[in-house]
Amino acid sequence: MSAGGRRIKLGLSMRGLGYHASAWRHPDVPGDGAMSFDFYRNVTQIAERGLFDMVFLADYVGVHRRDKPKGLLGRSDSMVSLEPLTLLSALAAVTHNIGLVCTTSTTFQEPYHIARMFASLDHISGGRAAWNVVTSFQNEEARNFGSDRILEKELRYERAREAVQVVSGLWESWDDDAFVRDKESGVYFDPQKMRPLDHDGKYFKVGGPLNLPRTPQGRPIIVQAGASEEGQELAAETADVVYAAHGSLASAQAYYSSVKSRMAKFGRDEDDVKIMPGLLAVIGETEAEAQAKYKVMQEAIDPIVGLSMLTGLYGDLSDIDVDAPVPENPVNVTMSRGNVMHELAVQRGYTIRQLYQSIAIGNAHNVVIGTPKMVADTMEEWFVERGADGFNILPAMSPSSVEEFVEHVVPELQRRGLFRTAYEGPTMRENLGLPWPTVSQRTQVAE
Amino acid sequence: MSAGGRRIKLGLSMRGLGYHASAWRHPDVPGDGAMSFDFYRNVTQIAERGLFDMVFLADYVGVHRRDKPKGLLGRSDSMVSLEPLTLLSALAAVTHNIGLVCTTSTTFQEPYHIARMFASLDHISGGRAAWNVVTSFQNEEARNFGSDRILEKELRYERAREAVQVVSGLWESWDDDAFVRDKESGVYFDPQKMRPLDHDGKYFKVGGPLNLPRTPQGRPIIVQAGASEEGQELAAETADVVYAAHGSLASAQAYYSSVKSRMAKFGRDEDDVKIMPGLLAVIGETEAEAQAKYKVMQEAIDPIVGLSMLTGLYGDLSDIDVDAPVPENPVNVTMSRGNVMHELAVQRGYTIRQLYQSIAIGNAHNVVIGTPKMVADTMEEWFVERGADGFNILPAMSPSSVEEFVEHVVPELQRRGLFRTAYEGPTMRENLGLPWPTVSQRTQVAE
Repeated sequence: MSAGGRRIKLGLSMRGLGYHASAWRHPDVPGDGAMSFDFYRNVTQIAERGLFDMVFLADYVGVHRRDKPKGLLGRSDSMVSLEPLTLLSALAAVTHNIGLVCTTSTTFQEPYHIARMFASLDHISGGRAAWNVVTSFQNEEARNFGSDRILEKELRYERAREAVQVVSGLWESWDDDAFVRDKESGVYFDPQKMRPLDHDGKYFKVGGPLNLPRTPQGRPIIVQAGASEEGQELAAETADVVYAAHGSLASAQAYYSSVKSRMAKFGRDEDDVKIMPGLLAVIGETEAEAQAKYKVMQEAIDPIVGLSMLTGLYGDLSDIDVDAPVPENPVNVTMSRGNVMHELAVQRGYTIRQLYQSIAIGNAHNVVIGTPKMVADTMEEWFVERGADGFNILPAMSPSSVEEFVEHVVPELQRRGLFRTAYEGPTMRENLGLPWPTVSQRTQVAE
Repeated sequence: MSAGGRRIKLGLSMRGLGYHASAWRHPDVPGDGAMSFDFYRNVTQIAERGLFDMVFLADYVGVHRRDKPKGLLGRSDSMVSLEPLTLLSALAAVTHNIGLVCTTSTTFQEPYHIARMFASLDHISGGRAAWNVVTSFQNEEARNFGSDRILEKELRYERAREAVQVVSGLWESWDDDAFVRDKESGVYFDPQKMRPLDHDGKYFKVGGPLNLPRTPQGRPIIVQAGASEEGQELAAETADVVYAAHGSLASAQAYYSSVKSRMAKFGRDEDDVKIMPGLLAVIGETEAEAQAKYKVMQEAIDPIVGLSMLTGLYGDLSDIDVDAPVPENPVNVTMSRGNVMHELAVQRGYTIRQLYQSIAIGNAHNVVIGTPKMVADTMEEWFVERGADGFNILPAMSPSSVEEFVEHVVPELQRRGLFRTAYEGPTMRENLGLPWPTVSQRTQVAE
């Protein structure tokens, strides 16, 4: 099997100081970077120099207040972060081609605001905005929005589906050529080309139209990361890009074909969605150098932070020696990913420390520790063997891991003809090779 | 009376293409500017060159769909606009000292999002964010957020007061020195310096803390424009800056002393709020030149657009000759500003055209048509005679009116010692001369 003219798409997931649990403590990482616009500007401009399709900011609308395991509170750098839409807008002003993706939750934000902010970012950036649709799942977030606990999963997905429908409808509030702005006649827009929405559904009632014209991309790109049955269905129906987490090619291939095979029933082509699993690379000139870098990071993990990654599965382990074997039974048997983790740990005879070290770096994602050529080999294999259309790069730490990837892996991919040598166009849609979105609905005009 | 060392504060209200009703049709105005980041960047950078304290974006979360008077729909350029928080964030990246103010409605947005977005903008801009608190009043906005009509006024203000309280509380989620980021010990922040909110009120239930540290200004600046009794009370209690509309010095003075006299009961100093009435200047080298410019703008007003300004007061007048006298009686007698307008029109024997022309430029604001010296004279008088601490400049059209003001009026004010010749500091708070906000509350820490 060959790439057959296809090209790898690249995203950079850049929230915070890095994906490794001890990243912020590393001497190469600016400890206060998470609050610094200059830090994000630098990282984004490096990614743009590397011709990445997009940068991505995940999001969480709250703070974990519980000190569990005891002593954890205060030792995590992921408690605070810049708000993604404001940050991406500022980044839009200092970049030219790179796509700008962030998460907004359909559970905690109104569709009119979602539609408007991403459309505005698309206008400001000249066609580089993308919305990562999430439903959120934590009670700590719900408590900032009037509830004691999060809506149950089935209802969250029902609400998400309706929200995407409303947002998409609002993005189609005007025909492409509605705004004529004819100074002579005084006609600013053609009222026949305005499409109110008048949506009245289970969760939302939204009149419309949106107070923004169609955007440079037609509409912003829609991203999703649905691993569950509900998530895959929603992605197949509505997503342009799908993020995913897979530790093996077999798992990635199964997911890839599962999502793509669902698309026909929604009248969509398989190429209309780009599936981009996460990839975390620790790069060295030699494999030994990469392993040595990895070891330094692993040893710097604060045991309390390490234990906090196991709390969901085993409860508070802070009274147990971290070099003891993992507990015999998880306290939470409903976590499917947790059970896989537990079985693997038992099978390999892991201590508690070995288990948290194994997940402290790119938990459940594809991790490659080695030379640029080894990283490119893995990417090529996953891409050619249809496990991925591209990769969402998770830097172990920023900006150094991003710099290494751009300096060493990107040229290797280019030499192999697997990655662009110049941006195809100014919009994210053009670079991803996605079709122009045709307007589906047609509603009555004025009252 | 002299200025006594006080300096005028200057804001630029820059939404859209200008405050004159025919601005977008003028040859000097870029017709598609409202959707162009470059347009706003240019205007903001001109204002920053003129050492303005702030630029301001008003906001409206909907579109007026009704074609009333008939033929209006399509002839207004104010139907679409970039979303203000995304736009200000992008502007933050290309400016250095100027304050960034926009409207967000407490009726349509959650306090957690409000607190977070403005705090994020404050971090990104290095201390230049300000929130203009509004309650909104139009049914067309409510219809985009699940309601058929807007909440009644008393409840809107009650909700706004609670929203400001929650947002302020969230902005105080962390002590100034909470984030130690000690790589050696692994302590990122001091948990003793985290302050959850646990607000449980009539309209909002918000746990907190905010997922952002205290901002470079301590907290963003709060702006209000409360003309009513409720509005003045809320402003005296919580605002740092107050926008206002006054057609005469006497009216401005009455308002100025009314707001300032309310502050003591909230434990605040009169200097802790800056009152900034709107000012629209049409500038010429001679008064005759200014009047000629004004005449061109007035004659370019589309009659339908002119009539639309009178619809609220008189209903649809599109079947009546615009050169006939104004109707004898308004159909809507509840509009206090409308009745003043009607009485003035009757007194002066205005035709319909003359009435809409009289309000097509800076409706109810202070309008000066003349030389830079005449504009500076008015500003000096209002400032020295305590009708204003500064002015919110309303450009008749952009960018040309802004350029003229910066090139001709600003130097005149500087010559008189009434305006800065350099920014006092990098933050909006320093430039406005406002005190550092001390943290009021102290709540328990971890669960």
